[in-house]
Amino acid sequence: MPELRKYPISERWVIISSERVRHPGAFVRESVPNTRSDRFCPFCAGHEDKTPPELLAHRSGTPANEPGWSLRVVPSKFPVLRVEGELEREGDGLFDRMEGIGAHEIVVESPVHVLSMTDLTEGAIEQVLWAFRDRVRDLRNDPRLRYVLIFRNYGESAGAHLEHAHSQLIALPVVPKRVQEELEVAGRYYDFKERCIFCDLIRQEVKAGTRVVTETDQFVVLEPYAARFPFETWILPKKHQSHFEEAGATQLNNLAWVLKTTLRKLERALERPPYNLLVHTAPLQEASNPHYHWHIEIIPKLTRVAGFEWGTGFYINPTPPEESARYLRDAGLG
Amino acid sequence: MPELRKYPISERWVIISSERVRHPGAFVRESVPNTRSDRFCPFCAGHEDKTPPELLAHRSGTPANEPGWSLRVVPSKFPVLRVEGELEREGDGLFDRMEGIGAHEIVVESPVHVLSMTDLTEGAIEQVLWAFRDRVRDLRNDPRLRYVLIFRNYGESAGAHLEHAHSQLIALPVVPKRVQEELEVAGRYYDFKERCIFCDLIRQEVKAGTRVVTETDQFVVLEPYAARFPFETWILPKKHQSHFEEAGATQLNNLAWVLKTTLRKLERALERPPYNLLVHTAPLQEASNPHYHWHIEIIPKLTRVAGFEWGTGFYINPTPPEESARYLRDAGLG
Repeated sequence: MPELRKYPISERWVIISSERVRHPGAFVRESVPNTRSDRFCPFCAGHEDKTPPELLAHRSGTPANEPGWSLRVVPSKFPVLRVEGELEREGDGLFDRMEGIGAHEIVVESPVHVLSMTDLTEGAIEQVLWAFRDRVRDLRNDPRLRYVLIFRNYGESAGAHLEHAHSQLIALPVVPKRVQEELEVAGRYYDFKERCIFCDLIRQEVKAGTRVVTETDQFVVLEPYAARFPFETWILPKKHQSHFEEAGATQLNNLAWVLKTTLRKLERALERPPYNLLVHTAPLQEASNPHYHWHIEIIPKLTRVAGFEWGTGFYINPTPPEESARYLRDAGLG
Repeated sequence: MPELRKYPISERWVIISSERVRHPGAFVRESVPNTRSDRFCPFCAGHEDKTPPELLAHRSGTPANEPGWSLRVVPSKFPVLRVEGELEREGDGLFDRMEGIGAHEIVVESPVHVLSMTDLTEGAIEQVLWAFRDRVRDLRNDPRLRYVLIFRNYGESAGAHLEHAHSQLIALPVVPKRVQEELEVAGRYYDFKERCIFCDLIRQEVKAGTRVVTETDQFVVLEPYAARFPFETWILPKKHQSHFEEAGATQLNNLAWVLKTTLRKLERALERPPYNLLVHTAPLQEASNPHYHWHIEIIPKLTRVAGFEWGTGFYINPTPPEESARYLRDAGLG
């Protein structure tokens, strides 16, 4: 019998069609290649002149925009939003518009042509996390910006245009709809219970155990109760924290291990699936709060979004999260 | 300069990156084939025993589940929800669940192996629209059901598993999130203005003209001001009407022409793109109301949904709707 499940954080129903449990092998239609193409790569060391000048680099004494770095953050050459200008909000009858002010940055995660984040050392992943933190802390000085989305598209069918390991940041002059929804639910829950809904969720999930993939003293990795997609995986800090950029050195060090282990488990269980990874955190200009709780969402691209999903905002997930959690636990490594 | 636009009905911001206007030819990466594959087709006349027994058929005196029909509605052989059983709502700590009660039906649009809806005559399309209306009117007798989503996936990459022209209906025991959002916005607007927001939108768009593709005495076809996707196209009845199933004979007759013309324009401008089509209508068990307004949304699959879209719920559209409207007007036919 299929089951309808509602996730408290999104207030979204998902159809878990558990009758036709799909084992990992049944999905894989598009593994990300593990050999490099022969296309020119603007992100490799030595090609610094093929990107706009760097905003941040981890380098030891070498001059900016020259080789000798281990990580670089550069503005996107094809930005979806631009830093220069005024917002100029205006209305036109029923419509609202403003100039496309914001920022679009690329984190080049390695000087060599690495394809997967799992090919980076834990130390290199930790450096990527520090770069995220540092860039967000810099961007929040711009009062026009309300939110920074940190994300990673891996594999062409998940939207990656270049294969060299990289992440992106897009800073927006508005709080995203998805985050606003989570904030509203978390705010209402806090008004009612005086507890963080995410903290309660973590306690319930750790106790149940069936949807937990990995647990460290700092983080829990789990498959959400109403996962929208097969093998959708969330990473949450155990300690309450509303903003990602408030994470400390111990947390980022542990998160590097957690992230690498989780991605390796997904790669092992699903044969290098394309995926999208994103960080949900509280809005930039707001102080720490007791109700929102930052987290990472990883969405492997295994199914197609079609008319039902566009029409309803609900999803059909052929793999119960209890099954995918078991596959990921059984994949070892963590 | 890119532009941020907000759509009043979804309260969603979209980035229109008009600097890199993409002409239709730049998208087409996956035209839907216009020759049939050699796979066995369970929807062709003569194969009636390969589907569950029909719920509705347009036939002249021939026995049920035999050849001699022009249109058939059958339960899905792989239903995502089932008609039998009780909802059995229950909670588990923070979580809510219920049994997967609902209905999943397939409208086989032709007895012959037609690939595109545009290969059907206007008369045959009108019959499809009548079948939608009749099935919704039947399903609303089941008090467990709150909503019927009518949709059509065309092309494998838009989620179609079989190439024979067909549409689907999924009846749900809950009102979809997307529809609930539209209902809330429309309800608030009505409280404030005592007018339907969709009626106001139609008046504004017809007056501006720049985003209008086609107009008849009954319907308007337009590219939404904050279109999420290139060539996203909406069809709205001009006369206020909350429920699709209240549409009358004159409307359905005109809609058949409008739908065929619009799909042919899209096929001509974009070389048979895969698409999802869906009907948004007021919930099943509610009486006609003055604030909601049913409509059809057509989403050609031309871009990839990636980390930014999943993380924000916002979209990046490289084609301003004014440009796509112009391409579709210039495609002739209507």
